[in-house]
Amino acid sequence: MKNYIFTPGPVAVPSEILIEMAKPIMHHRTKEFESIFAEVREGLKYIYDTKQEVFILAASGTGAMEGAVVNTLSRGDKVVVVNGGKFGERWGKICRAFGLDTQELMVEWGHSVDPADIKKALDKDPSIRAVLVQASETSTGAMHPTREIADITRHRDDVLLIVDGITGVGVFPLPFDEIGIDVMVGGSQKAFMLPPGLSFAAMSEKAWKFNKTSDLPKYYFDFKAAQKNAEKNTTPYTPAVTLIIGLAAVLRRFKEEGRESMFRRHAKLSLAMREGMKAIGLDIYVKDVPSPALTTVVAPPEIGSSKVIKALSSEFGITVADGQDQAKGVIFRVSHIGDIEKTDTLFFISAIESVLHKLGYKFNYGAGTKKASEILFGDK
Amino acid sequence: MKNYIFTPGPVAVPSEILIEMAKPIMHHRTKEFESIFAEVREGLKYIYDTKQEVFILAASGTGAMEGAVVNTLSRGDKVVVVNGGKFGERWGKICRAFGLDTQELMVEWGHSVDPADIKKALDKDPSIRAVLVQASETSTGAMHPTREIADITRHRDDVLLIVDGITGVGVFPLPFDEIGIDVMVGGSQKAFMLPPGLSFAAMSEKAWKFNKTSDLPKYYFDFKAAQKNAEKNTTPYTPAVTLIIGLAAVLRRFKEEGRESMFRRHAKLSLAMREGMKAIGLDIYVKDVPSPALTTVVAPPEIGSSKVIKALSSEFGITVADGQDQAKGVIFRVSHIGDIEKTDTLFFISAIESVLHKLGYKFNYGAGTKKASEILFGDK
Repeated sequence: MKNYIFTPGPVAVPSEILIEMAKPIMHHRTKEFESIFAEVREGLKYIYDTKQEVFILAASGTGAMEGAVVNTLSRGDKVVVVNGGKFGERWGKICRAFGLDTQELMVEWGHSVDPADIKKALDKDPSIRAVLVQASETSTGAMHPTREIADITRHRDDVLLIVDGITGVGVFPLPFDEIGIDVMVGGSQKAFMLPPGLSFAAMSEKAWKFNKTSDLPKYYFDFKAAQKNAEKNTTPYTPAVTLIIGLAAVLRRFKEEGRESMFRRHAKLSLAMREGMKAIGLDIYVKDVPSPALTTVVAPPEIGSSKVIKALSSEFGITVADGQDQAKGVIFRVSHIGDIEKTDTLFFISAIESVLHKLGYKFNYGAGTKKASEILFGDK
Repeated sequence: MKNYIFTPGPVAVPSEILIEMAKPIMHHRTKEFESIFAEVREGLKYIYDTKQEVFILAASGTGAMEGAVVNTLSRGDKVVVVNGGKFGERWGKICRAFGLDTQELMVEWGHSVDPADIKKALDKDPSIRAVLVQASETSTGAMHPTREIADITRHRDDVLLIVDGITGVGVFPLPFDEIGIDVMVGGSQKAFMLPPGLSFAAMSEKAWKFNKTSDLPKYYFDFKAAQKNAEKNTTPYTPAVTLIIGLAAVLRRFKEEGRESMFRRHAKLSLAMREGMKAIGLDIYVKDVPSPALTTVVAPPEIGSSKVIKALSSEFGITVADGQDQAKGVIFRVSHIGDIEKTDTLFFISAIESVLHKLGYKFNYGAGTKKASEILFGDK
């Protein structure tokens, strides 16, 4: 059976990129690789929309998250972590592992943080040195208002905004310099359509000032070493050569497509999915602003998401992600990032209709594909 | 022009492995991937010759080196680092970055450490808690006597032996349990014939005891989390899925070949290279015991290694590594690990002869290939 990967990371990798990475291996200390590296640096700056360097780490996203913390903060620093899902929770775990005084701003799953709550926390305690948040919380599908949070932190010289943009960068507009983000992390297996194993990070001028006094121990994730080496088109330690070659190919593709067009692509696919699901009577898990990276759909409670996920896999070769923790068995998560097109999205909805029908769910068969088709292929 | 990669990492990757990794991507939280992961766990234990778990990290070797330190030691711990090259130096840098009281045992480049010097250091200062060493120092080509060092540390309950086996594991015998190593690190882009991006680590019972009291901060490289997840055939954070699929294929190949036969393969190729080089009057940089992972050849001083390396590249499409630091321009480093066979090795020697001849070096043309051919293809 043909296999379809609709998980919000790892995502489907275009076959021409897989083939690019299957070419004979290249040594990283060669002119040829250095020129690819230079191209990748430019491409990443384009996607991040920044003049700053974007570091390329041989690690998955969590490694870059750790890097964001250890390169800027110091032992005992007070931080506010927005915890509205598994990845917000992870910020908290990383901060505590490195001895930071960590205050969690709990946000109900499926909701976005209210920037006013962040302002309140910062106003109440001027010794807070950083706010850590997800641009898009992959466990719930909710988007947090990065720009509005940056409006609060940008003019405070002693507060950093550290953003997990793993399912944000390249997915929707997050212009690093303009918004005034201080550290932003990305990952290869998301909008970048690559296998996992690479992550990214950029630092603002303000973040570099913090770096000067940061006393958290770091070696593999030392961004100062990464910066020094990037300027010479290399990395401090052996880079994940094949993934970087894949990245060069992907970035060429993105440049052609244009970042605005990438953002529109994700927005349209996610709109079609949400509206398609609503048309067959299903609820979207997100209560405030949904991330266009993925849609989190509440399965009919009498069926539960596990049965839906299982049937999608056995009958259609489709892999989607279950909810995590409190959302496990309640929702399924379907991706709009990676090598997913309008046709794939329509196919997915038709598969969901077929599966739900067989599982005894009562709905207006065809209403989902009709609605999605209008959005995806209609003139509007 | 056809390209030949003879660097001691990244190494040549067999094309069938590249193709395996070019297959459509798989999600890591699936039964299918879990079964591959289980297979890989067994395969790594076979290569490490251990009953312990071998962790798979999405990071290059330096990440696993950092992991070895932060999972066992505590702030202010005294350690002895064997520094006989770039990678020994790196142990020192990592230890100091994490606040360890680091004593370096300097070994002249090209030499192996004398175990007696380690014994002396430990006897002199009973508060030393770890010895860190390379099984094979890739910058000089020298092998350090891991077994003899373990004979000193094994019976000391309060001293760990932490081994960088990046160009050791799978290259020559380093039976983890039998020798009594406490932490050993490996990397994908070496004997494992894969692209860079994965590294490995195993911990002894004694190392786990140290882990209980270790207070160095850790999150991404937390081996306790890796252990807990490995038992469920997964990793704490998104694994480098494609590289692990490649690893499964490589380990299947190794099981068929047998680890003893792998060791013999590297030993034979390196012997042929050393003897071939000597036969044309070149010196080997290593003064004590050479590592079978690579041969470090001193270029004729009147020519220097840079010219040789350049000519190999432009005329033969061959990439070899230059020396580093004090050995830069003096030696070239040629690999016996990765997808390198007897035929490749013979071809390399014939290319060297051609290049040296054109560069005006006087020698008995053909003596290198003759000698190597006897060793590689003769009966002995």
